Amino acid sequence: METLNIAILGCGTVGGGVARIITDINNDLALRAKKKINIKKIVELDPQNAAERFGLPLDLFCGKSKKLTPAEAQKYIREIISSEEIDLVVETIGGKSDFAYNTCLEVLNSGKHLVTANKALLAERGNAIFEAAGTRNLKIGFEAAVCGAIPIIKTINESFTGDKILSISGILNGTSNYIMTQMQSKRLGFVEALKLAQEQGYAEADPSLDINGGDAGHKLILLVKLAFGMNITMEELSITGIENITMEDIDFANEIDARIKLICYTKKINGEIFATVKPMLVKNSNFLAKVDDATNAVRVNNKYSGVHFLVGKGAGSSETAMSIVSDIVFIARYGEKIACAPVVTEKNLADVRRFVFPYLITFNTGNIPGTTGFITTAIGKQDINIETVSHNRYSGEKAMFSLATMPCTLEQIEKAIDEIRKEKPGMLLSEPKILPILY
Amino acid sequence: METLNIAILGCGTVGGGVARIITDINNDLALRAKKKINIKKIVELDPQNAAERFGLPLDLFCGKSKKLTPAEAQKYIREIISSEEIDLVVETIGGKSDFAYNTCLEVLNSGKHLVTANKALLAERGNAIFEAAGTRNLKIGFEAAVCGAIPIIKTINESFTGDKILSISGILNGTSNYIMTQMQSKRLGFVEALKLAQEQGYAEADPSLDINGGDAGHKLILLVKLAFGMNITMEELSITGIENITMEDIDFANEIDARIKLICYTKKINGEIFATVKPMLVKNSNFLAKVDDATNAVRVNNKYSGVHFLVGKGAGSSETAMSIVSDIVFIARYGEKIACAPVVTEKNLADVRRFVFPYLITFNTGNIPGTTGFITTAIGKQDINIETVSHNRYSGEKAMFSLATMPCTLEQIEKAIDEIRKEKPGMLLSEPKILPILY
Repeated sequence: METLNIAILGCGTVGGGVARIITDINNDLALRAKKKINIKKIVELDPQNAAERFGLPLDLFCGKSKKLTPAEAQKYIREIISSEEIDLVVETIGGKSDFAYNTCLEVLNSGKHLVTANKALLAERGNAIFEAAGTRNLKIGFEAAVCGAIPIIKTINESFTGDKILSISGILNGTSNYIMTQMQSKRLGFVEALKLAQEQGYAEADPSLDINGGDAGHKLILLVKLAFGMNITMEELSITGIENITMEDIDFANEIDARIKLICYTKKINGEIFATVKPMLVKNSNFLAKVDDATNAVRVNNKYSGVHFLVGKGAGSSETAMSIVSDIVFIARYGEKIACAPVVTEKNLADVRRFVFPYLITFNTGNIPGTTGFITTAIGKQDINIETVSHNRYSGEKAMFSLATMPCTLEQIEKAIDEIRKEKPGMLLSEPKILPILY
Repeated sequence: METLNIAILGCGTVGGGVARIITDINNDLALRAKKKINIKKIVELDPQNAAERFGLPLDLFCGKSKKLTPAEAQKYIREIISSEEIDLVVETIGGKSDFAYNTCLEVLNSGKHLVTANKALLAERGNAIFEAAGTRNLKIGFEAAVCGAIPIIKTINESFTGDKILSISGILNGTSNYIMTQMQSKRLGFVEALKLAQEQGYAEADPSLDINGGDAGHKLILLVKLAFGMNITMEELSITGIENITMEDIDFANEIDARIKLICYTKKINGEIFATVKPMLVKNSNFLAKVDDATNAVRVNNKYSGVHFLVGKGAGSSETAMSIVSDIVFIARYGEKIACAPVVTEKNLADVRRFVFPYLITFNTGNIPGTTGFITTAIGKQDINIETVSHNRYSGEKAMFSLATMPCTLEQIEKAIDEIRKEKPGMLLSEPKILPILY
């Protein structure tokens, strides 16, 4: 039987999980891959600790039991890159540093396949990496980079090839979903819910990428690339995090039978791509509303086969590692035949302000009769139909005003708000919050 | 660019959908498959009608506009089988007749790949067909045979290769799910709900395979083959349909916060496979409880990556056709490298009576004090813990007794019932209904 020799760079949560699975079910993998998957080398700064944590033989580690300095680790990585014995490199260093970037490029330039969970690197600096792979007909497995265990990459690349993807929406970040779930089920404030997420191990010490939508944005960039063949950047993506979601927002959501979720959304309309990461009020009739805690879910709407949902674990050691191991088997099986670098089309990214959604608009007003009439009139003037005006919340001199529109654009809403501001300068007592409603 | 020449046998709902998609997005398919997908021939008894219905050129049809007799159609099929120009045959004749069986075998024996949605044929007579493909290293695409548009076959074969499947449960029949949904949401009786399903086009004129679990059983056989490499027969599978579900059952389900669904279930325990199709009381905490109407869903529990759900359309013309077209692209891309015939292990099918589930037991008793005590004592004697005794329904002389157990075997329950029958011959006034509870 042929052998596929692999090296694993980094033996932390994910890399260690990969080594563990490959060791555990090596015979099964050989039957499936029709090749023996052989771990040739692991590079890790603290081999002793990693070997114990994941039950791995020290022999696999570069330098055996010896702790490595970063310089030593880099020397071993260079050796792996220049080795002719290694067929495939698993990169689990993470991050978008020059070091990670150059390592990935050099792996490919040296003729080796690359498997990685590094969403930040592929999303922000991936074009050159995909190009390097494409030029040499080498493969990049990155199933683990989007929603951990959920096989959305292969589903798009291999199972929906007989279809046209119309739109993708999803809960692509587990931490923020956990926080939103806690806020909604236990009525915790954002800060408390975040603290709980950290205590439960869902959120990093620095959770900013999870809660500001950055991590979800990375994943959406990769999905847009796969589904629509378009390379977009973080700067071009309209991203809002969950930091400013309040208990009032949740109450308003309940009133319209919806749950607030951090949603990644992309849709192709007449060749234009809309793409955004935003907290949205997901109607309970949409399955995504029912996806709670740290679970991830992707909804794909296809021209021919309609709506699909994929639900599963978006993170975790063995969960993410499973996707990496499956990518290794896939590359072992199909190698150069895999069409992994998507066909890139010209960029045609639409301004999300022109995208049609129903919206919930909330802001504070004075507790003054006539306010509702003036605001709804201003909104009507912009050709926006109103679905409901919710129960306003009064507290002393202030009232919190909330209104759900029928489908319209953000542009229309902004015009209405501009007019209210111009005609009645004192009417809006807070910056309006405008959240899309997802059916 | 290379060409993949295909023939389509049968141009009804599914075959016509396949021809339509291939015609509509031929350029996209060529980019994805790296081959031009070329429909060479379609065999259909009534070409004129099919051409109009699916907007296809009459030139594609064998005999052009001329209606074919079955004998003529068979002659054309033989021509296709002996043609050296055809690379792949799409079989959408359906059914497990000798004709369909022999056609599939001959397609493979003549060196052509086969793509089919024919679950009955593959489940009941598939072993020889898979063997014929395996011997010649030809491929059988059958994504469309299990849950229409849901890509469960490729997910198991290509995306979960780095894992071990522990169990699969699912709603694999849309018609029965539609009926159960109507019964539960509108409180319709079974007969009325079935009638509605027929009116809405969900159920065939003869809906027996949908409601007696046969269709779901076919799909489960294919999943057991893929997930566990075991060939089982319909006779070996424990199948119960939904025909006997009553409004009382639904009320008892509501009491324990569950919904009744026709569930396909398979699990591997210590090398033994359990497999059954049964109405189960699915707890609302399980996502499957939320899958309504004709939607299908599959829940896969993996050793490393945990629980996954795939949800989508289980039937329909373009939905099923999409899976067939994706299979064609997959075969065009990877051809002989596809590991489609699963590794078959020795049969080790467990008696479902030994399988541990919590159960709901319901039956009629006389309206006699002491009954609850006697029954619960008899159950306790078999080492079964009781979770709840529901509110009994009294009607005149009779009471409907219902009891939810903690996990136990059907064997234990049957022993308890035997004892009740022996000790108190008049106590049970109806055959006990014993439904698993799925968490």
